[in-house]
Amino acid sequence: MIRANVVGGSGYTGGELLRLLLSHPDVAIQGTSSESLAGKPVGRAHPNLRGVTELKFRPLADLEPADIAFVCLPHGTASVRWDELLGLAPQLIDLSADFRLRDAAVYEKYYKREHPRPPLLEQFVYGLAELHRDSIRSAKWVACGGCNATASILGLYPLARAGLMDTHAPIVEVKAGSSEAGRQASVTSHHPERSGSVRAFAPTGHRHTAEIAQALGNGTPMPVHLSVTSVEMVRGAVATSHVFPSRAVSERDVWGIYREAFRNEPFMRLVKESRGAYRYPDPKLLAGTNFCDVGFDLDVDNGRLVVISAIDNLMKGAAGQAVQCMNLMNGLDETTGLSFPGLHPS
Amino acid sequence: MIRANVVGGSGYTGGELLRLLLSHPDVAIQGTSSESLAGKPVGRAHPNLRGVTELKFRPLADLEPADIAFVCLPHGTASVRWDELLGLAPQLIDLSADFRLRDAAVYEKYYKREHPRPPLLEQFVYGLAELHRDSIRSAKWVACGGCNATASILGLYPLARAGLMDTHAPIVEVKAGSSEAGRQASVTSHHPERSGSVRAFAPTGHRHTAEIAQALGNGTPMPVHLSVTSVEMVRGAVATSHVFPSRAVSERDVWGIYREAFRNEPFMRLVKESRGAYRYPDPKLLAGTNFCDVGFDLDVDNGRLVVISAIDNLMKGAAGQAVQCMNLMNGLDETTGLSFPGLHPS
Amino acid sequence: MIRANVVGGSGYTGGELLRLLLSHPDVAIQGTSSESLAGKPVGRAHPNLRGVTELKFRPLADLEPADIAFVCLPHGTASVRWDELLGLAPQLIDLSADFRLRDAAVYEKYYKREHPRPPLLEQFVYGLAELHRDSIRSAKWVACGGCNATASILGLYPLARAGLMDTHAPIVEVKAGSSEAGRQASVTSHHPERSGSVRAFAPTGHRHTAEIAQALGNGTPMPVHLSVTSVEMVRGAVATSHVFPSRAVSERDVWGIYREAFRNEPFMRLVKESRGAYRYPDPKLLAGTNFCDVGFDLDVDNGRLVVISAIDNLMKGAAGQAVQCMNLMNGLDETTGLSFPGLHPS
Amino acid sequence: MIRANVVGGSGYTGGELLRLLLSHPDVAIQGTSSESLAGKPVGRAHPNLRGVTELKFRPLADLEPADIAFVCLPHGTASVRWDELLGLAPQLIDLSADFRLRDAAVYEKYYKREHPRPPLLEQFVYGLAELHRDSIRSAKWVACGGCNATASILGLYPLARAGLMDTHAPIVEVKAGSSEAGRQASVTSHHPERSGSVRAFAPTGHRHTAEIAQALGNGTPMPVHLSVTSVEMVRGAVATSHVFPSRAVSERDVWGIYREAFRNEPFMRLVKESRGAYRYPDPKLLAGTNFCDVGFDLDVDNGRLVVISAIDNLMKGAAGQAVQCMNLMNGLDETTGLSFPGLHPS
Repeated sequence: MIRANVVGGSGYTGGELLRLLLSHPDVAIQGTSSESLAGKPVGRAHPNLRGVTELKFRPLADLEPADIAFVCLPHGTASVRWDELLGLAPQLIDLSADFRLRDAAVYEKYYKREHPRPPLLEQFVYGLAELHRDSIRSAKWVACGGCNATASILGLYPLARAGLMDTHAPIVEVKAGSSEAGRQASVTSHHPERSGSVRAFAPTGHRHTAEIAQALGNGTPMPVHLSVTSVEMVRGAVATSHVFPSRAVSERDVWGIYREAFRNEPFMRLVKESRGAYRYPDPKLLAGTNFCDVGFDLDVDNGRLVVISAIDNLMKGAAGQAVQCMNLMNGLDETTGLSFPGLHPS
Repeated sequence: MIRANVVGGSGYTGGELLRLLLSHPDVAIQGTSSESLAGKPVGRAHPNLRGVTELKFRPLADLEPADIAFVCLPHGTASVRWDELLGLAPQLIDLSADFRLRDAAVYEKYYKREHPRPPLLEQFVYGLAELHRDSIRSAKWVACGGCNATASILGLYPLARAGLMDTHAPIVEVKAGSSEAGRQASVTSHHPERSGSVRAFAPTGHRHTAEIAQALGNGTPMPVHLSVTSVEMVRGAVATSHVFPSRAVSERDVWGIYREAFRNEPFMRLVKESRGAYRYPDPKLLAGTNFCDVGFDLDVDNGRLVVISAIDNLMKGAAGQAVQCMNLMNGLDETTGLSFPGLHPS
Repeated sequence: MIRANVVGGSGYTGGELLRLLLSHPDVAIQGTSSESLAGKPVGRAHPNLRGVTELKFRPLADLEPADIAFVCLPHGTASVRWDELLGLAPQLIDLSADFRLRDAAVYEKYYKREHPRPPLLEQFVYGLAELHRDSIRSAKWVACGGCNATASILGLYPLARAGLMDTHAPIVEVKAGSSEAGRQASVTSHHPERSGSVRAFAPTGHRHTAEIAQALGNGTPMPVHLSVTSVEMVRGAVATSHVFPSRAVSERDVWGIYREAFRNEPFMRLVKESRGAYRYPDPKLLAGTNFCDVGFDLDVDNGRLVVISAIDNLMKGAAGQAVQCMNLMNGLDETTGLSFPGLHPS
Repeated sequence: MIRANVVGGSGYTGGELLRLLLSHPDVAIQGTSSESLAGKPVGRAHPNLRGVTELKFRPLADLEPADIAFVCLPHGTASVRWDELLGLAPQLIDLSADFRLRDAAVYEKYYKREHPRPPLLEQFVYGLAELHRDSIRSAKWVACGGCNATASILGLYPLARAGLMDTHAPIVEVKAGSSEAGRQASVTSHHPERSGSVRAFAPTGHRHTAEIAQALGNGTPMPVHLSVTSVEMVRGAVATSHVFPSRAVSERDVWGIYREAFRNEPFMRLVKESRGAYRYPDPKLLAGTNFCDVGFDLDVDNGRLVVISAIDNLMKGAAGQAVQCMNLMNGLDETTGLSFPGLHPS
């Protein structure tokens, strides 16, 4: 049994980790921390777990060392308190934005603050198994990707590898659900204001731009234009990416590229049907799953390839991705504990 | 391995059964039928199962005998074609309304048609383990309860047993999600019309009234006043039941009644907290689970006890209930394959 | 032109008043107050009014006397600051709960605080024209009814007058939208938590019980059992009332009672059709309107009459009701400025 | 009084026209047609109009000539039955796609059918006052723009005029509500399937591409890349347009371009604030209004200008646009009958 700590277990990402680990056959949860809810059962923060577990939150300082620790602290926290976290486990998976970028200067540009520990950056592996499976297997420290970045990257990496994005930067528009903002209530998340809205959250300048550029680039960042729009859903991130291929491609070519790329990927599904409500990926089907569904549509006449890629932002975009990494780091089957297929209808 | 047939597998209930059985450790799906989709992969009807199974629909006539058959045909079909269905398996679980009522006259009153096979009625056990666990264990034929009836009955049966509803008929108002209407599109389910509506679906005369009366009565039907209102959600049925206890009770008495009744029930949760968004049952937490959450509020001054009971109408209200029965009928742990705890937020 | 002040104009009710008064042909807005937004254009709080008006918020102390003042301060405020408000206009319409109840003891029981100015209570007229039209015409002070109370009372007052509720207390279940909680964000209104929920908000003990009892009683409060459930919508309050008539009635009797009661009522519509998505009242149709739609269904066999009454909680349940009162108090046509018929679909 | 016919009055667009015309001070509705609902009150199709009008549907053949006719027939109908429609009024406003394009070859390419009456095409004026005000004033025949096209064009025409789109085709992604599909129920609009979905409706090849290209081009079509995604809302179309300006521009330049373009436009609002939930256009605010809100965000470093433009698809995208044209064609104030400011919250 792998003993696991969940640091910062009261947020949405922490809650999903607890849910996944509770039903994971090879994991025992050692402890989970929350300063504000210390002493309270985890069901207080995560009502879906009432009656499912007797686990209680503890102060971080009271967590005992384990085999692995998942760190779900607010952005900017883990990098400051890293030495303290090191004592919690030899394997650490950080779910914040602190260690995703390789280049401290890029971090500073996007996060408007100096990175407190630049030398640590190169010691982290970015948590997308589809790009870095072997590195994750041997990693001790992993930084999970951001949700919007994950959706975008997973839809585009096969095209990047095929050299189709060498000449034109893709335009990526992500539609995001309200859980992306996390657990903290605010005026903008107040139900009467948020319900039914289509809100231009970040037309330009979204922080995940840097992650996508880093992941798709081959050593040097690939230029990418990102916009994020908030729409009416709780879970989900869908990237609609407009790609202008560097060379002429046929639909058959694109089928080939994706089939090849996803052949052995347990969580990548190619979704492209000629008709029906679900002919392209839809996040509605993905709540609770670790899948990333990818589809495409090619406008041959105008040289535009539109890629649609969808995930559950709290799963493949956070907690599911982290468990997938944990499985790889510990020699388990990559899909262990991640087999929930999703609900229809929902 | 239990070999299972799912008859009528293209509807919402059939889809949930397929999903549950695919991940059930002791079941192998023998076949599933759909006349209109014969030859097509089940993912055509249930897009969440794309990439999860290679199973295809077959005509009912092509199904091979198995150990158990789940029958998900439209209301009024199974009772007409029962002899044909008998050949599919020695154990049969019907999910339609055809065999839920013991009394053919009551059936005729509520369904406005004569029952085609009255003698069969007494051979069925009603599928709520919480009421009929032992009978289900030894049953060969089970009729699963209707979704609204299930939510209502599970909230009230402890009070009925305690004799609190002997003098006044409870008033039960169910709030129901759009999936209750099944897969068939109609003008009233057209998204622009259904979205955001609070629709008085059946202020009086709802068919499930008869089931509730039968289940709560002790041999003779218990009078009950039912109303069903459709609200904006896809999955879920919540019964708000107004009970006027036959004798004075304190909050402590009511706690005692429910604790005692639910003590060994794996899917009944008592939900009653002093504060927070989830201090009472909320169907939002239950999508995909087999739980029935029950809470209550007592107005001592005015002698009213309000009971709130919530389920996922497609799970505890249909497919989950059926799998729970299958487990019991086959000597398995009752919870096998039904452990999904639900998502938060969702 | 009637000059009007809107005191506390930054909340949802204040915003609706500003919207209505801006397009009212006989009203000029003198000023509107908000301490926190003083100096800012009203579009800052009410984005629908951007480009529609140049009006800015002022501190309450800076408002100049006008002909009428609408008071939209938080509950418990107007009664404490009443002397200060008196200077704002000879006609005052309060939209809080401070002056709705006639009996200070009842106020204390439901609001858990002593009423600061009991003698004022009898000087207010309750703002439902359907019950108190003549009194409102000659009133200088009006207290608008609460939204859930308004929906409940307007559905039931014809039955009360007909003596059908003399022997059994009605059971009223209100389904309420998220705007009822007002503008203030909180954990329970955080979109991921509130979206899609069916939340037992107040199974018993809701404050509006007292208003309904007062309005339906003939001098002494009529017993009433109220529950309020929050559902997924922003605007709307729907009361489903279960009435057990004191004497046997036919459907024709009930038609007669309502037709007679609503004959000259400009905002009461009887909605009862044999089929279709909108055969009963639906708040979905009422957003922005001052209508109260009422329908019913009679279960003759079991002596139960179910009444469904729906409003827009911010309109007939607050700002629209207030403007209707203003019209009456000033000899205008009662419907002036309130003719928006609502959207379909929406 | 202008006497108006509404041909095809039972659909969503027809319903909105009836609602607008009923409250228009200078219009009397002569008649409205529906073959399937002939003889029935309009409230049967449009429940918001119950109690508001006594108008009944008639067969088209029974409509009497009027001053103006609004034609809301299904796409492909008006062009076939044009001679018949001519008798209904000297002024005709068509709301279908039949007469929007100038070039019959382009029509055939996008609509996959030969245009039945090519010579008529050049006799129609495209119904966007912001582009063709003077032509509309003197027109007898007007073709209203498609909803997605309208949202897109109104956000971009100031940039096109300023020559900023001469070198790069804009990428336009429209988020659309479910009412765009019209009144006809289908499997894809079934509430359990449509609710909460983010559906790639037309990643490429959407028919409105041709309209946008025609409207933004200066004689010859301007290349444009359009994608349409269906999201969870009933009303609304939001275009997020990614523009790569032909020359370097500052934020101040862009402000200047839009301020100049919208200075005298009664329905165009520039929405760009530094903070808050509504800092950019949101269709949530626009239901029932004729506004088009436009905002932008400039990424100077990467030479990308993102424009967000939002409308109510049934209003500025259909019925409101048509009434605006009618006002212009008849010398009325352009805003008559179109002053509803929208609701907040909603």
